[in-house]
Amino acid sequence: MNKICKYILAITALTIFVSCGNNNGGNNSGALASSKAEKVYVAPGEHDEYYAFFSGGYSGNITVAGLPSGRMLKEIPVFSQFPTSGYGYSEETKPMLNTSFGFVPWGDAHHPDISQTNGELDGRWIFINENNTPRIARVSLATFETEEIIELPNSAGNHASSFVTENTEYIVAGTRFAVPNPQRDMPINEMKGQFKGPLSFVSIAENGRMNLEFQLNMPGFNYDLAHPGRHKSHGWFFFTSYNTEEANTLMEVNASQNDKDYIAAVNWQKIAEYVKNGGGKRVPGKYAHNVYDEKTHTATSTMKDGVITIDPKDVEGAVFYIPIPKSPHGCDVDPSGEYIIGSGKLSTDLSVYSFEKIQTAIKNKDFVADAYGVPVLSYENTIAGVVAQPGLGPLHTEFDGKGNAYTTFFISSEVVKWKLGTWEVLDRQPTFYSVGHLMIPGGNSRKPFGKYMVAMNKITKDRYLPTGPELEHSAQLYDISGDKMELLSDFPTHGEPHYAAGIRADIIKDKSKKYYELSENEHPYAAKSEGEAKVTRNGNEVHVNMTMIRSHFAPDNIEGVKVGDKVYLHLTNLEQDFDVPHGFSIIGANTSEILVMPGQTKTIIWEPKREGVWPFYCTDFCSALHQEMQGYVRVSGKNSSVPISYTLDGE
Amino acid sequence: MNKICKYILAITALTIFVSCGNNNGGNNSGALASSKAEKVYVAPGEHDEYYAFFSGGYSGNITVAGLPSGRMLKEIPVFSQFPTSGYGYSEETKPMLNTSFGFVPWGDAHHPDISQTNGELDGRWIFINENNTPRIARVSLATFETEEIIELPNSAGNHASSFVTENTEYIVAGTRFAVPNPQRDMPINEMKGQFKGPLSFVSIAENGRMNLEFQLNMPGFNYDLAHPGRHKSHGWFFFTSYNTEEANTLMEVNASQNDKDYIAAVNWQKIAEYVKNGGGKRVPGKYAHNVYDEKTHTATSTMKDGVITIDPKDVEGAVFYIPIPKSPHGCDVDPSGEYIIGSGKLSTDLSVYSFEKIQTAIKNKDFVADAYGVPVLSYENTIAGVVAQPGLGPLHTEFDGKGNAYTTFFISSEVVKWKLGTWEVLDRQPTFYSVGHLMIPGGNSRKPFGKYMVAMNKITKDRYLPTGPELEHSAQLYDISGDKMELLSDFPTHGEPHYAAGIRADIIKDKSKKYYELSENEHPYAAKSEGEAKVTRNGNEVHVNMTMIRSHFAPDNIEGVKVGDKVYLHLTNLEQDFDVPHGFSIIGANTSEILVMPGQTKTIIWEPKREGVWPFYCTDFCSALHQEMQGYVRVSGKNSSVPISYTLDGE
Repeated sequence: MNKICKYILAITALTIFVSCGNNNGGNNSGALASSKAEKVYVAPGEHDEYYAFFSGGYSGNITVAGLPSGRMLKEIPVFSQFPTSGYGYSEETKPMLNTSFGFVPWGDAHHPDISQTNGELDGRWIFINENNTPRIARVSLATFETEEIIELPNSAGNHASSFVTENTEYIVAGTRFAVPNPQRDMPINEMKGQFKGPLSFVSIAENGRMNLEFQLNMPGFNYDLAHPGRHKSHGWFFFTSYNTEEANTLMEVNASQNDKDYIAAVNWQKIAEYVKNGGGKRVPGKYAHNVYDEKTHTATSTMKDGVITIDPKDVEGAVFYIPIPKSPHGCDVDPSGEYIIGSGKLSTDLSVYSFEKIQTAIKNKDFVADAYGVPVLSYENTIAGVVAQPGLGPLHTEFDGKGNAYTTFFISSEVVKWKLGTWEVLDRQPTFYSVGHLMIPGGNSRKPFGKYMVAMNKITKDRYLPTGPELEHSAQLYDISGDKMELLSDFPTHGEPHYAAGIRADIIKDKSKKYYELSENEHPYAAKSEGEAKVTRNGNEVHVNMTMIRSHFAPDNIEGVKVGDKVYLHLTNLEQDFDVPHGFSIIGANTSEILVMPGQTKTIIWEPKREGVWPFYCTDFCSALHQEMQGYVRVSGKNSSVPISYTLDGE
Repeated sequence: MNKICKYILAITALTIFVSCGNNNGGNNSGALASSKAEKVYVAPGEHDEYYAFFSGGYSGNITVAGLPSGRMLKEIPVFSQFPTSGYGYSEETKPMLNTSFGFVPWGDAHHPDISQTNGELDGRWIFINENNTPRIARVSLATFETEEIIELPNSAGNHASSFVTENTEYIVAGTRFAVPNPQRDMPINEMKGQFKGPLSFVSIAENGRMNLEFQLNMPGFNYDLAHPGRHKSHGWFFFTSYNTEEANTLMEVNASQNDKDYIAAVNWQKIAEYVKNGGGKRVPGKYAHNVYDEKTHTATSTMKDGVITIDPKDVEGAVFYIPIPKSPHGCDVDPSGEYIIGSGKLSTDLSVYSFEKIQTAIKNKDFVADAYGVPVLSYENTIAGVVAQPGLGPLHTEFDGKGNAYTTFFISSEVVKWKLGTWEVLDRQPTFYSVGHLMIPGGNSRKPFGKYMVAMNKITKDRYLPTGPELEHSAQLYDISGDKMELLSDFPTHGEPHYAAGIRADIIKDKSKKYYELSENEHPYAAKSEGEAKVTRNGNEVHVNMTMIRSHFAPDNIEGVKVGDKVYLHLTNLEQDFDVPHGFSIIGANTSEILVMPGQTKTIIWEPKREGVWPFYCTDFCSALHQEMQGYVRVSGKNSSVPISYTLDGE
């Protein structure tokens, strides 16, 4: 066992030790407890002050919570099938999960980021990346529905994503696992110098539409996290990388050898200009682009091929590396845009870089090395300051807009507050346990709302009543309005939140859509009134255009369906009022039910297997007579001559 | 439009009116607010007092919350695919969702009920029914995992379920949608007298194993809800029915014509005895029985055929109908077993029946009619009392163990507390909005814990920050320890909770399993140490027995896989500590990731489509070097001669 290996085992042991601490951190006696209770209590009928959007990690989704209550208000299906609403099961939404690898029912959602205007959160959309089969999604903050997903070709492990620039010009997507680019059959242990780490830049149009503009074909390190420059550093993007060792096996040891890895500093404005002027080379790269149309209530998936690739050596003055101690994770930019905080997760110090010093070093060509043709700036000449020995295992930093930074430490399980510019530690609070990222609403913008901070903890152990071997992860809410951080509450989260984005509720709430206009419904199989309901046969395909309204379906009796038919059930909810969904399910369907919002049309397929009279019903308790909202389909034998017929109330 | 139709429209309008009331019910100023905040606040590191298990309705799952905090501690996948953990996607769990209709990825979970011993909750298992493709599931309260699912043949709409008798002898399953039994191709409008409503009785063995003992082939009404007798009425089961009109279309009107429908009173002990003595007739009926084995960590699905059917006319003194006003929903039995509360949802009064009077009427053959051969007892001679005009749209009643009953009223949106025996209304509290069921922990047993009551509301509207057209449903927590009910808090729920079961935490928490013993792992592809890890080819099937431990896979480099192969990735988590799961995913997989608990083995299939070097990684942040927990698979062309090889650290 070599030295590094022992070091890692020591860290692991320390993690376990810290994780088992039994300090509850509550400070929960007498008047103080009462005050904390009041601070997080949102009385019946009152609303939370902030929306918090947590990534679901391995759930593939986003969960929406209110702050300070910590109540989960909704789970938004994004990259994973969601039986609750039929997302990824209905004919209209299945195209959303299409990829160049075929239908993928799952994704690993990591870092949500809210759209910005002039560096401030504008509440139009939230973006989130998928790590496993690289994709980025755009979710509307009017409907809280996923509207678009774009795949990233030539990439593997889209972790350094989906961070937006300050006018939502671009979103980036890194490559966490270096791979051959283009992909090819080659021995894994020959990766050194052969693999690549393309960084993708996706532009955002006025209407939100995403377009893969170019990929920067970087050396084959692992690109981990990223943040855009802002304010004075607007136009730049910063990416942490690890495994500059280019190891391909036992990475916990072999990718932890170098004293320093790199932050990549990328002048994306310069590269965009270069591409606009015809720069770059078009290379193959298959990817799906999936768009949901709010008028037809239907997604389409378009398979594309080809992307502009840029060799960093070809755009002078656009791409640099900055040395950073030991396998960095977070890469965070303060509200002024001057400071870039790198978190070397195996380092004892926290390195803060100066944007101005970086610019000076670039101007002076103050390079200390060259990595596959990318100039390496000097650590000493770009560093603004070092927060000395603030804790163990720094991961991620956010800001309160009052000159302070808050960094999470995974190994020592704490959040440390420190001062930008003086680098002094002002406060530290333990977390329970092993904190990953943290979130201050607006903390990744020019104007953070510096009232609350949420720590997203990876290890839960004894924080809640036990639920067998599998536990939810745990968040902790801190009040950061005073000089010292105050722990207010613990609340479980769902999936694994790797990051979250928060926003003041009033920026979104009044724009929230209440229902879809039936008159604007352009779904080809919509029945916009009971008079338009019908059943038609086309070979062995049967299309049922059915309506739903409190509390019946039209039609509710259907005959003439045969074993072996493929029955398309197109359901239109005729309601035009807020919060009156209807659901639809039918016995033995090999798909999920569908939950249909007012004004919307959704479709599932049913392939009856046996003769008989089979019921369907509404799955959402919609009125006092909801239990009566049901119907029957008569299924006859393959060769039956029973004609198609359908009725409501025998008419 | 006929009279009934107008009545229904009036009710609907009233529902809407009530739903839009803007009284927030908070009473949330000054000292009182502070007191409510303290009552629901569970300080960091402290635990909730009760577990609450909410049915997910159209989510198909169970969600576990703590009370009084309302925090959601876990979602247990039961009837629906769950991308978060790989349930229903992994090879080991796919058999759990098998049915006689093939693989069904979704279910409609309605009424959870906790196992009992001597009429008290014992915390061994929780059962829950699936309404759409009739099934019952058993979930372990040691592992919080679904261990068994049994399908109910010949049934349609398993709504009156899954209520357990007081020593967990039987669970019942009704038929909500009358259907031909056996199923056959026949005109829907000839249903009257032809359709049936079989009631299934499933026995529970000492180890929890379920067995479909018999089906009582009742007349073709819609069986809605049920509850077992207890204490003095132990041995009986009571089922509400509606649509005694036997209507098949526009049910909201046509199934609301009769002044009275029926409660079916069934002496199941007598029928069980009859069956034991060879009674009943074996008829066809295909159904799946799916069992998860904790040793092999694998489910098997067995297709069965045939069930004992009982004609109610054949067992004298075992089956009776009791008239009940207008389309009843809930059918609830008080802790003493004497009172059966029927909630006629279109009735203005609440009818309470006396078990003793029912017995006397049976003894005296005091029958007023006959419904398809089932004797009908007289309303007057079985009624214990009537709660007069307590509210509009009664649905469901629970008990506090102190002589009081609590009934929900959907239309007038309130919970009404009334006294058993005197039938006087003691208190009423508005709910926000349109309450369905309610739950008092232990409220469906001999010994309710009469401290909290949770109202599960169907309409949410303005209770929380808006989240677009689709809102979560809403629960409200009341303190019922005093004379008057006190509303404490609102919290959103997930899917649609139709019912919940609550239990004092100490009955479960110390028995909660922390991890699986690796030494007891009998999975045929388990690698119980890194030395056992291997990759083997069998034709175009490749089996990878892989291990996971902080923070690497073994092997982590695999070569020799070809395009067109079917790669079975069998992952064993070698950890033997609480709360150290590892996850596994691989780029482009057409399935979900898998989350593997310590000591467990899980499998997913990957079918590589293109040549190249493709990464896999751990999806659950497991240590400071989690980002390094990754590996590569080299995929060669179909006709490649690259041999299978695999390494960890080049060894």
